Amino acid sequence: MTTKLVVATTNRSKVSEINEILTRSGTEIVGLDEMNAMLEPEETGATFGENALIKARHYFSLTGLVTVADDSGLEVQELAGAPGVRSARYAGPGATDRERFGKLLAQLAGSPEDRRDARFVCAAAIVWAGGQRLFVEEVSGNIISEPRGSSGFGYDPVFWYPPLGKTFGELSRAEKSNISHRGKAFRRLALWLQQARTGLC
Amino acid sequence: MTTKLVVATTNRSKVSEINEILTRSGTEIVGLDEMNAMLEPEETGATFGENALIKARHYFSLTGLVTVADDSGLEVQELAGAPGVRSARYAGPGATDRERFGKLLAQLAGSPEDRRDARFVCAAAIVWAGGQRLFVEEVSGNIISEPRGSSGFGYDPVFWYPPLGKTFGELSRAEKSNISHRGKAFRRLALWLQQARTGLC
Repeated sequence: MTTKLVVATTNRSKVSEINEILTRSGTEIVGLDEMNAMLEPEETGATFGENALIKARHYFSLTGLVTVADDSGLEVQELAGAPGVRSARYAGPGATDRERFGKLLAQLAGSPEDRRDARFVCAAAIVWAGGQRLFVEEVSGNIISEPRGSSGFGYDPVFWYPPLGKTFGELSRAEKSNISHRGKAFRRLALWLQQARTGLC
Repeated sequence: MTTKLVVATTNRSKVSEINEILTRSGTEIVGLDEMNAMLEPEETGATFGENALIKARHYFSLTGLVTVADDSGLEVQELAGAPGVRSARYAGPGATDRERFGKLLAQLAGSPEDRRDARFVCAAAIVWAGGQRLFVEEVSGNIISEPRGSSGFGYDPVFWYPPLGKTFGELSRAEKSNISHRGKAFRRLALWLQQARTGLC
């Protein structure tokens, strides 16, 4: 039988000395990253906006600092909007990006071109002592049948963006930021922040 | 004027896309590590044991899991036990190991050999639903005037261990664990854990 326990230190050198001793005695260690993940709120919202607000409110309540959070994902028409708010969990917890978009491509196998329309949606939330704001943006494209490019993350390599004739996985950071759901949402948030600034602090 | 805000996501790719947009607008971002550090308890104890229990209780209350924590440091006779519980903060927040032991060597400049006796102390605490235990161990040596070796961390390169004729910075991981304050404290904890196991879970 193994005991699962948390090693409560942020000093990675200490953690590694301690882990070595404890794992030898058959103890399963919960690492720092896993422990911090346990402190995250559950994303129980039905929309990207609800989840972004849940996260921003949670960390605002813990830190007392102005907090922004992102919730975002891919909606595919043929799949009635899936993976949607479950985009990150679509292929189970701990899955790789490749497993996620692999599952998506498998679900869409045989679907005709015109049924593969998709959009990326991003909700950017900001919460401060006096209130909250939400900025939701999207970008339209379609899901191609083979991944292309290795930039970005998540579903980027299978999301084809017609105006540039490339997938998001083939765009540079700056190109993607310029037209992406996240770029648009956070630029609106940043602009709002510049104007609202004196009211927040 | 800059606004300081938290970006509440553990997805490092998202953080980096968002940071780029927000920093361009003159916003100072509190990173994930810094935010998690803000969730740490204040180490207000007067002893290593008190601080170890503060940390273990704090993370036990957040996670509900059996939690172990370490508080440890160096006590130098000539300095009336300093740096002691302030070992990690001795050269200010964010200082490097080199700055820490550099300050120590400067304080001891001119002190005769026999006044440079020191000990490393480690308090290992474990907290679970039914109670808490503390294991405190130490190891004696002395502070040499020039650092030697690059293993370990913290004050290891200036802590001379006479029985092996080396500094802690010159020991392998296994050699250090075998005789160190932390090794001894956590081996006792691990042994106790093996015996107590059925009562904890």
